[in-house]
Amino acid sequence: MKKTLLSVAMLALCSVQATHAQSDYQADSVFIRKIFDTALSEGHSYEYLRDLTQNVGSRLSGSAGAAKAVELTRDIMVREKFDNVFLQNVMVPHWVRGAKEKAYILSGKQKIIVPIAALGGSVATPKGGTKARIIEVQNFQELRALGAEKVKGKIVFFNRPMDPTKLNTFEAYGGAVDQRGAGPSEAAKLGAVGAIVRSMTTRLDDVPHTGSMRYASGSPMIPAAAITTNGAELLSKTIKANAETEFYFEQHSETLPDAPSHNVIGELKGSENPAKYIVVGGHLDSWDFAQGAHDDGSGCVQSIEAVRLLKVLGYKPKNTLRAVMFMNEENGLKGGIAYADSAKNKNEKHVAAIESDRGGFIPLGFGVVGTPAQKTKIVAWSKLFAPYGLHEIGPGGGGADIGPLAQQGTVLLGLIPDSQRYFDYHHASNDTFDKISKRELELGGASMAAMLYLLDKYGVE
Amino acid sequence: MKKTLLSVAMLALCSVQATHAQSDYQADSVFIRKIFDTALSEGHSYEYLRDLTQNVGSRLSGSAGAAKAVELTRDIMVREKFDNVFLQNVMVPHWVRGAKEKAYILSGKQKIIVPIAALGGSVATPKGGTKARIIEVQNFQELRALGAEKVKGKIVFFNRPMDPTKLNTFEAYGGAVDQRGAGPSEAAKLGAVGAIVRSMTTRLDDVPHTGSMRYASGSPMIPAAAITTNGAELLSKTIKANAETEFYFEQHSETLPDAPSHNVIGELKGSENPAKYIVVGGHLDSWDFAQGAHDDGSGCVQSIEAVRLLKVLGYKPKNTLRAVMFMNEENGLKGGIAYADSAKNKNEKHVAAIESDRGGFIPLGFGVVGTPAQKTKIVAWSKLFAPYGLHEIGPGGGGADIGPLAQQGTVLLGLIPDSQRYFDYHHASNDTFDKISKRELELGGASMAAMLYLLDKYGVE
Repeated sequence: MKKTLLSVAMLALCSVQATHAQSDYQADSVFIRKIFDTALSEGHSYEYLRDLTQNVGSRLSGSAGAAKAVELTRDIMVREKFDNVFLQNVMVPHWVRGAKEKAYILSGKQKIIVPIAALGGSVATPKGGTKARIIEVQNFQELRALGAEKVKGKIVFFNRPMDPTKLNTFEAYGGAVDQRGAGPSEAAKLGAVGAIVRSMTTRLDDVPHTGSMRYASGSPMIPAAAITTNGAELLSKTIKANAETEFYFEQHSETLPDAPSHNVIGELKGSENPAKYIVVGGHLDSWDFAQGAHDDGSGCVQSIEAVRLLKVLGYKPKNTLRAVMFMNEENGLKGGIAYADSAKNKNEKHVAAIESDRGGFIPLGFGVVGTPAQKTKIVAWSKLFAPYGLHEIGPGGGGADIGPLAQQGTVLLGLIPDSQRYFDYHHASNDTFDKISKRELELGGASMAAMLYLLDKYGVE
Repeated sequence: MKKTLLSVAMLALCSVQATHAQSDYQADSVFIRKIFDTALSEGHSYEYLRDLTQNVGSRLSGSAGAAKAVELTRDIMVREKFDNVFLQNVMVPHWVRGAKEKAYILSGKQKIIVPIAALGGSVATPKGGTKARIIEVQNFQELRALGAEKVKGKIVFFNRPMDPTKLNTFEAYGGAVDQRGAGPSEAAKLGAVGAIVRSMTTRLDDVPHTGSMRYASGSPMIPAAAITTNGAELLSKTIKANAETEFYFEQHSETLPDAPSHNVIGELKGSENPAKYIVVGGHLDSWDFAQGAHDDGSGCVQSIEAVRLLKVLGYKPKNTLRAVMFMNEENGLKGGIAYADSAKNKNEKHVAAIESDRGGFIPLGFGVVGTPAQKTKIVAWSKLFAPYGLHEIGPGGGGADIGPLAQQGTVLLGLIPDSQRYFDYHHASNDTFDKISKRELELGGASMAAMLYLLDKYGVE
């Protein structure tokens, strides 16, 4: 935060840099105003997203919804008359939830039904479900201290909440999500028969928040599920009152053979360097019970819109601009990897890539990953973003899908929206279109268009 | 915006001011962190607001809901063991909507029902409703150009939208709300029999957004109502297709005699200057069909919470700190006026007052109204707020309810949350508790507590 302030400070005091002449600054300022005016008065993101969430809905990799989303976003870019719209083949993991999960807490004669959701990648419970004593831990250290003797044959309940005092909720997520990703295998190593993980949200609510987990090689694959935060509170209280508390859960998830799918790509051809590329993207897949309005329908429609805005404003890019809908961010990243591999194989030089995958909330800045010189150059554009409330240009990362482009030295940028509400809806059934503010969504797309414009016009060297 | 940046810039580069020694800065920084940590982990605002919106609900001045809200907020402050909790008498306007409005568009044989809501303060239609040709105008100039000949006997439809390109939606509101406040009388002066005003929101939706209007003295009092934005679009289209289009509406609103009501006040006594006061407040009344979650239940609960946070953190104020729930901001400002009058009569010196009346959204800064020296002093605290995302300290106003305190030279501050979503819910039936983000709400209360602390500790001179 201090670094940003200082950068903004230096910019404000030193006014315009030698690298950015006053006349350019004026022209850029006027053009960026046009981008925002157009987005706020005639933006398309919101209607694209309505279509994607309400006419397609959930779209986990390998599902019919994912295939439909590929068609829909391709059709949008064709309709908007992008220069070139095409699909890129990618094989994706194909995990399915199966029939709805069942779960209850058993304490003495009490049987309390609680909502759970299998974690992405988890196996099913044995036929008839898993019932066992349940023990609560806050972290892996505590789990290991219990040892195999106390864990064997039990279900392990990981109940460390996200730290609510972190202003950036992604930091709070980062501080808790090891329980979901690696907890089941850590428990299995000690002989546990199942794992129940507190949903990754700071909210107390009644919707389970799923997400992917990975089995460590060599550990038994035990079934694992997320329990709602209200359920977790109740379960913890019940265990405290009665150490003999048991838990029952039944789930039918399974991993099918990998399935064919696609990244969806739309281009505006570059006039000077058509073989150099700047990407703006989001991921098209969502969890199976989520419309994925914020995660990451928003990023997809903002990416299409960023390119469309430059197009309708008559901007002729130097480099080829690409909107990319990556497939399979949630449980494999196969789309991001396939995209970078293809770029390498075809010798497509990628100058920069921008990802939006933090929800369609009010934009506050961009994270920038590049050399110090590249960061300095981009941070120097801060003044152009300040009128639109983007005060944080610099700190932070890019995005998962564009990450694999780092191997070719691409500058990576991530749109940073406000994070307060993101985990209210993350990976849950309440991540729906009605949680989207049209203005916030369109402002994000406009911010990406403005950054795309500056990256294209000035390059990153 | 530039001024803010420059201020932040100067602060960041010059580091700490002579007026704010390093040791104080450290202590303040630590204490403010505690305020935010407490608010985010154990904040009470959200549960106060749940109570206010769901157990009381709408609370227009003079209504049973308003009386219940007075009791509820008093009880909360008693329960939180404020040093002194009391009610201040205030007579308020008592306008009632009566039975639900009816309205339709008549074009040829087509009769299209549209949702409307009487504007606050409007008279009823004559018995059986008002039916007349309807003419659309964008502004008063256009209306006057039509002249009495073309307006007489007709209903005037004011349809100028809020400008969506304004980043600050309050500016867009300011640019359109003359139609609602003064439009009916402007139309009546030319002989119109009714006025229909496009709802004040940038959204296209199906809920009418009401708000107050004022009859100019000497003009006939004609009935006036807000039509939904979708209804306005349809009506405009219909009029363009058929200039003979008629409109029918029926409403039963009336103004009853003024009613007794109250401001609700809770205090923490000052240890050094108990007869000097710093106020933090919001307004308790809401429109009759709105839970008033954002407008302005949020401001009320944040004000109570700001004082409570300082109390539970063991802060001993120098001056007496007051949380004030003002009555009747929406249609009279009688609470704000009564409060300032009482302060004057009792010779209560008010050092500063902070209002939150822009919704419970993510806080971005404070508007400050005071002398240049006072503003400079307060802006110099910006660095303490930056870690919490408040980058805009300085530009902007205070708040309507605290406005009357200006007569005694009180420094006025207004919390500035992000404004993108505010008018989605403003004065409409969808301003409900589910539109509130707990974290955003609590962050606003914490920001006010931090400002209250600094104002109390350092004064404004």
